[in-house]
Amino acid sequence: MNDAFKQQALDYHEFPQPGKIGVCLTKPAESARDLALAYSPGVAEPVREIARDPANAYRYTAKGNLVAVISNGTAILGLGDLGALASKPVMEGKSLLFKRFANIDSIDLEVDLTDPKAFVDSFGGINLEDIKAPECFEIERALIERCRIPVFHDDQHGTAIVTAAGLLNALEIAGKSLAQARIVCLGAGAAATACMNLLKSFGADAANIFVLDRKGVIHSGRDDLTPEKAGFAIDTDARTLDDAIDGADVFVGLSGANMLSPLQLEKMAANPVVFACANPDPEIRPEIAQETRPDVIVATGRSDYPNQVNNVLGFPYIFRGALDVRAREINEEMKMAAARAIADLAKEPVTAEVLGAYELESLEFGRDYILPKATDARLLTVVAEAVARAAIDSGAASLPYPEHYPLS
Amino acid sequence: MNDAFKQQALDYHEFPQPGKIGVCLTKPAESARDLALAYSPGVAEPVREIARDPANAYRYTAKGNLVAVISNGTAILGLGDLGALASKPVMEGKSLLFKRFANIDSIDLEVDLTDPKAFVDSFGGINLEDIKAPECFEIERALIERCRIPVFHDDQHGTAIVTAAGLLNALEIAGKSLAQARIVCLGAGAAATACMNLLKSFGADAANIFVLDRKGVIHSGRDDLTPEKAGFAIDTDARTLDDAIDGADVFVGLSGANMLSPLQLEKMAANPVVFACANPDPEIRPEIAQETRPDVIVATGRSDYPNQVNNVLGFPYIFRGALDVRAREINEEMKMAAARAIADLAKEPVTAEVLGAYELESLEFGRDYILPKATDARLLTVVAEAVARAAIDSGAASLPYPEHYPLS
Repeated sequence: MNDAFKQQALDYHEFPQPGKIGVCLTKPAESARDLALAYSPGVAEPVREIARDPANAYRYTAKGNLVAVISNGTAILGLGDLGALASKPVMEGKSLLFKRFANIDSIDLEVDLTDPKAFVDSFGGINLEDIKAPECFEIERALIERCRIPVFHDDQHGTAIVTAAGLLNALEIAGKSLAQARIVCLGAGAAATACMNLLKSFGADAANIFVLDRKGVIHSGRDDLTPEKAGFAIDTDARTLDDAIDGADVFVGLSGANMLSPLQLEKMAANPVVFACANPDPEIRPEIAQETRPDVIVATGRSDYPNQVNNVLGFPYIFRGALDVRAREINEEMKMAAARAIADLAKEPVTAEVLGAYELESLEFGRDYILPKATDARLLTVVAEAVARAAIDSGAASLPYPEHYPLS
Repeated sequence: MNDAFKQQALDYHEFPQPGKIGVCLTKPAESARDLALAYSPGVAEPVREIARDPANAYRYTAKGNLVAVISNGTAILGLGDLGALASKPVMEGKSLLFKRFANIDSIDLEVDLTDPKAFVDSFGGINLEDIKAPECFEIERALIERCRIPVFHDDQHGTAIVTAAGLLNALEIAGKSLAQARIVCLGAGAAATACMNLLKSFGADAANIFVLDRKGVIHSGRDDLTPEKAGFAIDTDARTLDDAIDGADVFVGLSGANMLSPLQLEKMAANPVVFACANPDPEIRPEIAQETRPDVIVATGRSDYPNQVNNVLGFPYIFRGALDVRAREINEEMKMAAARAIADLAKEPVTAEVLGAYELESLEFGRDYILPKATDARLLTVVAEAVARAAIDSGAASLPYPEHYPLS
């Protein structure tokens, strides 16, 4: 970021008023009569109805469309552990994206997650954010066990869903099958773990997945692995990225800047797929990758290159679909349905108006367009609907499929 | 409430969408550029600024205007302990009132308050609600100790402030002084405790305050008193309401329906002041009180009688003033300033437009108009300003007095 942009970002957050979100009323509150209905004495009625049947909270309160965006600030957007309060602008940003893209009301809670169960009553869903591994696995597990509402750690599953969507399309364009693909994943944190697990669900061969942490390839000879990492241990002689990358079809980078060298890229198989997702600086710069291997298909986390792997393609619509059928969880079937819906949308012709006035481009499915644009208005319908239907088919939904869809 | 009104209250909460509040965006979020400022990469700047100085959270996030409305549902609006979730319509109602009257953004958290410190980072203030005594005292104490933001249990202090405002005016009209007044308080819960303590701050004589709990008058001979109740123990032979009411100038009812009999009212001193605040049915019906004692001044918690003692006259503006000068607490000086400002406003002439189109009446300071109406638009200016100035004068404020006031 240049200094001018940094100042614009600060001004955007400060003026005309601090922050990015507020609370608004969805019911009239002007007359004394309005207030008698909204508060005392009228409010006693919905209170009694909810006391009689907790499900009535979805009829008479905002719970059904309200998501908590929760972080403890231990792993803020590539900035690291800066504390809970410092994560607030990011969490408010998340709430902004939820509202902007899926009309979901969400509020950020910067918390020390000792007892998250404490406030889940208030919400219809929980989005975890910027919590470092391995604690994030434990926190997510604990919340899922204790809550009957969707709990979703976006850094894990949102990233996995959008990455899987892009990879499915990239492999199709490269003329390769996921089942046979040799996959190298540099990085073994929350996002990498979720990405590789979702690829397995899509049929990737565990024996063909090489995950590397700071100590190198995760193999069955290692005795220093967390339970999450141990799930990726394979029998192999490969120890380094140089070993693993040799002949690989796919490189997924969730590590750091410039971790993939041109020499390493050269050793990959024909039509290599490179997802260099480190933010803000990718594992290899796209222009350098293309220079090195004209047959490469590259994706990054950046909006200033083609093929941006952007979580906003997923989480707003995943929660929209989950909330609309009151899903009790966001399960593997729902995640896979979301990834497929995102991937399929990239194959549909793009017109100016579906992108919104600000991003006039004409895009066609291919090497430079494997994922929809963040502002594609069709994401709301297709992804939310796919997730809602998957929730119903997998038995996770408490409501039937909505008549008019999407509800938002 | 008749059945028709009950149904209207349910419909109001259910249609066109469930609940009463939502989240809205306060910054543009349309173009890709907007999103780059609001989220990645722009958001990194305010994050760094807050990590550098926590006070910057007030510059770059919504924290400064955001209040948590927190309840565990153990004492819901005269409905009792119906659980946290059942309190959600009331808490959303509270948020509605905060927004409607003082443009304060607030979100309800229905929680088990084991570790409230956990999420205070997210908010600029905390409003506690519907938490039963004596736990509410401990919870409030613990929060105040742990937080550097205003913590306010409205059932205690909001009730006390509005009651004190009404009593100051009622006694003036009755031609009596608070210092000499003999006061009987029926009820010794959270609200009663706070009311009597605030009256003491205003100069009421502790020896002239008779507080009664379920076991009768709280006197120095009793060994069954909580610390809060013990503060009201006096040397007296009075044991029952009949004993205490004899010659009393003021009756404050925070107990239950019809607890004050006409015979007891007859025994009160000339120009008796009766605050029958039990909801929904007062300790004595105003028409019966007037029949019994034409010289009585009556106030209730009901909107369908004159002189409604309504917390909404207080909490929105108290928090407005506290937030606008970033007060670290809501101290006794600020509470007294709020009560005085509310009392003084009742002496100002009322015009149609200050009440809003819905409540056309002409009211004049006197027996039937001792407190402003809930929809009086002047409350925002006079009460918020009084609280803000008191915060500054008492050293509780972190910001100077705003140039343009009120900020909202």
